[in-house]
Amino acid sequence: MGTPDEHIHPVATGRAAETVKQHQEPQDLVFYAGWFCPYVQRSWIALEEKGIPYQYKEVNPYKKEKHFLDINPKGLVPAIEYKGKALYESLILCELFEDAFPEYKPHILPDDPFDRAYVRLWTDHVAKQIVPAFMCTVMAQEPEKQKENLEDFYKALRTISEKVKGPYFLGEQFTLVDVALAPWVVRDYILAENRGYSREAAGQKWNEYAEKLESRESVLKTQSVSTLVGVHGSSS
Amino acid sequence: MGTPDEHIHPVATGRAAETVKQHQEPQDLVFYAGWFCPYVQRSWIALEEKGIPYQYKEVNPYKKEKHFLDINPKGLVPAIEYKGKALYESLILCELFEDAFPEYKPHILPDDPFDRAYVRLWTDHVAKQIVPAFMCTVMAQEPEKQKENLEDFYKALRTISEKVKGPYFLGEQFTLVDVALAPWVVRDYILAENRGYSREAAGQKWNEYAEKLESRESVLKTQSVSTLVGVHGSSS
Repeated sequence: MGTPDEHIHPVATGRAAETVKQHQEPQDLVFYAGWFCPYVQRSWIALEEKGIPYQYKEVNPYKKEKHFLDINPKGLVPAIEYKGKALYESLILCELFEDAFPEYKPHILPDDPFDRAYVRLWTDHVAKQIVPAFMCTVMAQEPEKQKENLEDFYKALRTISEKVKGPYFLGEQFTLVDVALAPWVVRDYILAENRGYSREAAGQKWNEYAEKLESRESVLKTQSVSTLVGVHGSSS
Repeated sequence: MGTPDEHIHPVATGRAAETVKQHQEPQDLVFYAGWFCPYVQRSWIALEEKGIPYQYKEVNPYKKEKHFLDINPKGLVPAIEYKGKALYESLILCELFEDAFPEYKPHILPDDPFDRAYVRLWTDHVAKQIVPAFMCTVMAQEPEKQKENLEDFYKALRTISEKVKGPYFLGEQFTLVDVALAPWVVRDYILAENRGYSREAAGQKWNEYAEKLESRESVLKTQSVSTLVGVHGSSS
């Protein structure tokens, strides 16, 4: 467990390394990434789901290149550059990929406007309830506080579990809710090893859903052998 | 200054009262609102901008009707009901109005996917920087803390001001950034009267932009004579 520092392995490993290797050729869409960052993984999963052509560029959080900072002054990843325009924020990038490349499928937002709003509502639950509870549990130092945060995390997981239609959140379609959540599912071993978390304790439904998320091809393809919960220089 | 309590005037007044009166007839789209709530006003501005037919229903936060709680168990406003489906969250509702009623114009999201993402990015700045700083300044009790929060508020306003093309955020088009921000602009007298805030202190550019927002017809039409910063039972 830890946060990235200057001694961190500076490149992706495992399946993610293969994916990086396949995306070195120049493309109109440049994806600025950090292999360890769960927010990066969200946008990366979306790109891989849809098969949009992109060039992967690893950003070293301790040595950011001038061009990257010129187009993206906050220096956050994930970020993209497309024909001179730069943008960031993981979920906004996912929506952008839907809007800008509608011909690349599958779509991660449903066609029906109400289903789409429903997906955004539960993506918001991931962003405002599940992720903060995860991060607070990791960061809390006092055992009492750790326990409290872990309870919040379980509660947030149970709340979403009740709504999961299976195999994915909305049913057969893999949507933005799943994209937003998967990077934390593949990192939950950090909580298991250090905070006594177990998927089973969040319920059978959560356990099944988590297994579906972590075995999705786009999740596996963007996964390094070891992951860290990256918070430094990362966007949200 | 204050937060709503049971003695609060239970209906809209001024221009907002006229708008409420014009939206009493049953419609497919039912808009559950609280006249005092800035989050409600966001979705209400979007409805009025676009001219979507809707039925306005005032929700008394202390006496919520059974049907409202049945369709919307958290009891939050703003909320909508449309052909048996219920949804909430102010910004998600604004996006839903764009998606579900594309024939009603003007659109509050640009057609270009990159401009759209840019608007979402700065809407996020409103939601994560400007509004929290406003609320913290209102709620802080110690003078030192009030001053600190007010500085954060000014900083967040100056940051967005630099990007305002004028008259609105993106230029001539009134977009989601403006919709998200306007309800706090019309309530900034609370900070002026109680915390020493002035628009001028945030800069001439902010001052001009704030005047444009508060004089937009859809903002005026959803504005009661006195407003309060509603936090009780309100969504975000």
